[in-house]
Amino acid sequence: MRYGMVGGGDGAFIGAVHRSAAALDGRLELVCGAFSSDPERSRRSGAQLLLDPGRCYASYEDMFRREAALPPDRRMEFVAIVTPNHLHWPVARQALARGFHVLSDKPATLSLDECRALRDALRDTGLLYGLTHPYTAYPAIVEARERVAAGELGRVRKVLVEYVQGWLAEPIERAGNPQAEWRLDPARAGLSSCMGDIGVHAFNLAEHVTGERVVALCAVLNRTVDGRQLDDDGAALLRFASGAHGVLSASQVCVGEENDLRLRVYGERGSLDWRQQEPNSLWLRYIDRPAQLVRTAAPGMGPGALAATRVPAGHPEGYIEAFANLYRGFAARVAAFPERADAANGEWLPVPGIDAALRGMAFIEAVVAASASDAKWHAFPDV
Amino acid sequence: MRYGMVGGGDGAFIGAVHRSAAALDGRLELVCGAFSSDPERSRRSGAQLLLDPGRCYASYEDMFRREAALPPDRRMEFVAIVTPNHLHWPVARQALARGFHVLSDKPATLSLDECRALRDALRDTGLLYGLTHPYTAYPAIVEARERVAAGELGRVRKVLVEYVQGWLAEPIERAGNPQAEWRLDPARAGLSSCMGDIGVHAFNLAEHVTGERVVALCAVLNRTVDGRQLDDDGAALLRFASGAHGVLSASQVCVGEENDLRLRVYGERGSLDWRQQEPNSLWLRYIDRPAQLVRTAAPGMGPGALAATRVPAGHPEGYIEAFANLYRGFAARVAAFPERADAANGEWLPVPGIDAALRGMAFIEAVVAASASDAKWHAFPDV
Amino acid sequence: MRYGMVGGGDGAFIGAVHRSAAALDGRLELVCGAFSSDPERSRRSGAQLLLDPGRCYASYEDMFRREAALPPDRRMEFVAIVTPNHLHWPVARQALARGFHVLSDKPATLSLDECRALRDALRDTGLLYGLTHPYTAYPAIVEARERVAAGELGRVRKVLVEYVQGWLAEPIERAGNPQAEWRLDPARAGLSSCMGDIGVHAFNLAEHVTGERVVALCAVLNRTVDGRQLDDDGAALLRFASGAHGVLSASQVCVGEENDLRLRVYGERGSLDWRQQEPNSLWLRYIDRPAQLVRTAAPGMGPGALAATRVPAGHPEGYIEAFANLYRGFAARVAAFPERADAANGEWLPVPGIDAALRGMAFIEAVVAASASDAKWHAFPDV
Amino acid sequence: MRYGMVGGGDGAFIGAVHRSAAALDGRLELVCGAFSSDPERSRRSGAQLLLDPGRCYASYEDMFRREAALPPDRRMEFVAIVTPNHLHWPVARQALARGFHVLSDKPATLSLDECRALRDALRDTGLLYGLTHPYTAYPAIVEARERVAAGELGRVRKVLVEYVQGWLAEPIERAGNPQAEWRLDPARAGLSSCMGDIGVHAFNLAEHVTGERVVALCAVLNRTVDGRQLDDDGAALLRFASGAHGVLSASQVCVGEENDLRLRVYGERGSLDWRQQEPNSLWLRYIDRPAQLVRTAAPGMGPGALAATRVPAGHPEGYIEAFANLYRGFAARVAAFPERADAANGEWLPVPGIDAALRGMAFIEAVVAASASDAKWHAFPDV
Repeated sequence: MRYGMVGGGDGAFIGAVHRSAAALDGRLELVCGAFSSDPERSRRSGAQLLLDPGRCYASYEDMFRREAALPPDRRMEFVAIVTPNHLHWPVARQALARGFHVLSDKPATLSLDECRALRDALRDTGLLYGLTHPYTAYPAIVEARERVAAGELGRVRKVLVEYVQGWLAEPIERAGNPQAEWRLDPARAGLSSCMGDIGVHAFNLAEHVTGERVVALCAVLNRTVDGRQLDDDGAALLRFASGAHGVLSASQVCVGEENDLRLRVYGERGSLDWRQQEPNSLWLRYIDRPAQLVRTAAPGMGPGALAATRVPAGHPEGYIEAFANLYRGFAARVAAFPERADAANGEWLPVPGIDAALRGMAFIEAVVAASASDAKWHAFPDV
Repeated sequence: MRYGMVGGGDGAFIGAVHRSAAALDGRLELVCGAFSSDPERSRRSGAQLLLDPGRCYASYEDMFRREAALPPDRRMEFVAIVTPNHLHWPVARQALARGFHVLSDKPATLSLDECRALRDALRDTGLLYGLTHPYTAYPAIVEARERVAAGELGRVRKVLVEYVQGWLAEPIERAGNPQAEWRLDPARAGLSSCMGDIGVHAFNLAEHVTGERVVALCAVLNRTVDGRQLDDDGAALLRFASGAHGVLSASQVCVGEENDLRLRVYGERGSLDWRQQEPNSLWLRYIDRPAQLVRTAAPGMGPGALAATRVPAGHPEGYIEAFANLYRGFAARVAAFPERADAANGEWLPVPGIDAALRGMAFIEAVVAASASDAKWHAFPDV
Repeated sequence: MRYGMVGGGDGAFIGAVHRSAAALDGRLELVCGAFSSDPERSRRSGAQLLLDPGRCYASYEDMFRREAALPPDRRMEFVAIVTPNHLHWPVARQALARGFHVLSDKPATLSLDECRALRDALRDTGLLYGLTHPYTAYPAIVEARERVAAGELGRVRKVLVEYVQGWLAEPIERAGNPQAEWRLDPARAGLSSCMGDIGVHAFNLAEHVTGERVVALCAVLNRTVDGRQLDDDGAALLRFASGAHGVLSASQVCVGEENDLRLRVYGERGSLDWRQQEPNSLWLRYIDRPAQLVRTAAPGMGPGALAATRVPAGHPEGYIEAFANLYRGFAARVAAFPERADAANGEWLPVPGIDAALRGMAFIEAVVAASASDAKWHAFPDV
Repeated sequence: MRYGMVGGGDGAFIGAVHRSAAALDGRLELVCGAFSSDPERSRRSGAQLLLDPGRCYASYEDMFRREAALPPDRRMEFVAIVTPNHLHWPVARQALARGFHVLSDKPATLSLDECRALRDALRDTGLLYGLTHPYTAYPAIVEARERVAAGELGRVRKVLVEYVQGWLAEPIERAGNPQAEWRLDPARAGLSSCMGDIGVHAFNLAEHVTGERVVALCAVLNRTVDGRQLDDDGAALLRFASGAHGVLSASQVCVGEENDLRLRVYGERGSLDWRQQEPNSLWLRYIDRPAQLVRTAAPGMGPGALAATRVPAGHPEGYIEAFANLYRGFAARVAAFPERADAANGEWLPVPGIDAALRGMAFIEAVVAASASDAKWHAFPDV
């Protein structure tokens, strides 16, 4: 299957991850790209990727227009959007308008209103949309979600989710780090740095695994390092529709932490615990018997999770493999299009879609608004 | 050194821990007790402990009166109070009035007002007071505190502290579990179950290790199991005087958790991470070099921490050993009394005192009040 | 119950552990001692321990003679032997001759022949004997042994046991470390340092937990640090009577290791894994389902193991607590004496006895002889 | 760069790993294959891989002949051999004869004699050869090797290496598992199952990281499951040229183990510890300071190791990423060929070559011969 890419020129971090993830299973071919808003850099990046120079475009508008003009068996079949946040929606809008399915980095847009417009565009075109929350695609998370859904933990009472990093503990955005620079720039990042970049992953994971929906939150966002316009740290207390409670912590200034996303879900009869840095281990604990450690590809993993694995137990699968599961799942949907465009996740590997996009944008807006408020609780938008 | 005990009759949990802790170093002898409000049970408990029947008293009032009448070389030199919460202050007041130093379980009293009265009684009598927050007495925590104080982490920015248990996930207080019963009974436990029993340990540990003081908090307390009058779960966002932020989570209904007290402190240049369930490991992480694992009695532990150890590295020291450090530290103060009644902790193993007692009671009152409020932030009392 | 001690004067390591272990449950009282071959040091040590000066003896011979002359309700009821190895048997012999039960440090004697003489002396006197392999007394090991005996793992196929330390990586025996000095002195330590001091613990644990008996071994002992007369490192391949195989590694020169005793047992259907440095965790793994983590005092531990615990789950129990279980178990036997002198371990906490003593001495002799041989396999003595 | 593949048809495990590893960086294209000795299966496999049907060959002989006839800018530039063991050398010989560089699975041949013939063929043709010991290519192992070489641990004294699996605990080779079937068949696997399949990885890793060379070994191989012709379990004591000692354990019948390759190296001043199942963590321990945990892509990793990483710290890299490093390293050598065919590993990511091949075959022969011998020590061939 052929895909194109917008963003991800040389020097970018996430573009290379996308390309490795797409390549891993040998089923997807990158055929074109608009890798940078700088046409020369776009061409150079494409050349490094051994692309046909004629398909290394100077702009995404150009790419969509010219790809759409190619015969169906040559043109790209979907586009991956890996730009800074502010371009996600403009690029997606154009892609959809030209008839291309979209697999986009999160957050989907810069605002909830934009995200509603995205939803409408998807409804109008009937095209497919995927959002890259790669942590949902680890086998252990597939397993976790299925176990919660099957009622193994009983009714969920408490959710503890955290995502702590330390890489922004110093003002590296003023020392030439391009990743830090755009993430802390409101024009490109949006309303939030910490919550928009990583808090939203934690939020998504919590809702994704539990199937619960946040209805209110209380939040505090902090700008720990002087001179920043956006938050680099924060926390939120969560209230779910079911009455369950939660705590979400996120930080980019926790010195010494790498990328420590952790989810704990406590039900009436059991609980689960998962850490992204050791992603092949899923802990299940019970009220009346010993803890179990379910491991990737080992006994205890169900068929859904096993479909997300590639190697036998004990051969660690990591971040790129999880990301590749998103590509695998999205490609399966594209291949089946349009017959089963509305099929449930169960048939394929899960890929977060427009619902996750709306929830994520609602979270970012809500957590920022809640932080600015003196009232304890802030209602979560009904999306 | 001779000590007496109030509470801790047969069937009680913490009394036995106190006695083991006191016995561990072979320096302290339990010479008398009022182990129960039931005189017969008190006598039976004393007999099981091989005490002189004449010093197994029917009431604590009786004990203080009669012990005070014994010659100085026979009478108890301090009293350990291990009753349910509501008796801590009445017993301590009587003990002080009769001239006995007091080592008391937490929380010190049922209210902050009572605790101020306790402070005044201590000021008036000049006697010694210790509060059993045993987690402060682990060697790794002694080390942690010294490293923070020495500036190794830089200015503290963020504190994550949590204390999660699962033992109250079911209504065992209505099934005859006496430990659960009194902890969930407002008359005996006070304002809070979860925060009064374990949240206050987490709070104490956070302030103890960082040397920071909370000035405001935002809290949510929950009664997860139907029919409870007190909280069994909760969380608080913390603001420290220095501007640092924190998150405190505590729960007694996190199914599958044992006694998972964990403290993480993030400074500008380094961070630390400690978990009570693996108490001999202290993680130190840095912005620019690999993480270090400092282990009990191994290279990297300073003299203060080493003084809190008993066996060579690799021979695990546990909860009773930590508790024994409180006894060791308190006994050292009693032995030196009155010469150095105001000596700093540095000379001996640290023992939380009236300051920790006041802060703890302020925390319990504040977190309960904050939870009841619609305002986000609640000022922490100035004690 | 009253006990006396031989060895363990000030400066010794293990004597203090014994005393703490004995004191922990408040049931045992140290009433006398011959703490050193230096009478003055013995008296000084006893004074520090607050003993009656009249019962701080100048020699163990003196102690046994004079204690035996005391009325039964005053004299010691058993003796703990905590000297360097070469005195274990001479002291035990005298104690038995004077009618005292013996709880001795390992190895029981300096040779297998001496150990057979010890066996005969026990048979002749009918007195009780306990050997302090404290690792057998951790709750998780009690549980492990019961599960293997119950067939949960199926037939045992493979045993991996290791005990690695690093404290003798440098020649500290020539720099005034008394612990190192006697352990590397053939006159006081016996045939072996590494295998006699720690290898024998590993061997004991392997046989104790599996119920299997070694019938042949192949061994290599090394003197890693120049100038040593005894081994400081070694390994042995093991063959068990059942046909199972094993590997035993022991070292005192593994820099950076603390006291890492680990046992893994693999059966046809399941396996177990335990590490002394995290003694409250017992891993059970299965051929067809997820691994289980059984934790001290948590669901999954049977009554035997629970009897070896003191505090609720999540309050770590350590080395001294395990050691105290040996004292508790031995004291229970002494209390019941002579009615049930031959009772099986099942009634009380397990205490290794003369069988473990004989097996241990046979191991030390066999592993030294096997190391000196050019033949691969060396038959294990039939004891 | 274009490569071809021999073996790895549908149903094979390792062929898919090779293809994912090759694809990961987007630099290598699979252009042809002889995926099975069954021509129809070969064609079907190629079709599934979207290859040009004209380049899905019926036999490897056919492939080498016809690829060699293609113009240089179309024909494959190297071949990956992923067949069962017995074909590694016949295929490699043909490939070299036709002028193709070879990247082969281990073991390189079925015997040391064949491996010497391979060495001669490489010398004669001047072509490149790589051997896929993927564990050498984890970033943490690159770091480990550099630190040992730099003397950070001091002189190496002791090596503990083990590789334990449980997948062959039952006779699945007689229940239709093709992976098990050929590994336990002497005609296809060679002299050994356990040591030839995984023991040789452990041996390679030990020599690779330490730079030490085994000169003698003592071994026991076992056939744990009835009816097997080859070993499924074993252990070896190792003696290195430097005087260091080692213990190697390997097993395929350790129920509950996944793929637990672990290496510990103890020097005079420091030690290292690495486990493949948590490959992003490298422990470094020291005689006089706290342990350090060096993590993939985090501070403490040198440039060599960093070159083997793809994503920021905390995003786990796994087995396929390590395998991809071998492809990346080999492709770099092919790209530079013939200018720097003899360049040291330092310039590129390390790829085991003919030296590792010879050592590995010598190990397999030696460990089998040593196991059959009654003498303790067996000299290691001088290769």
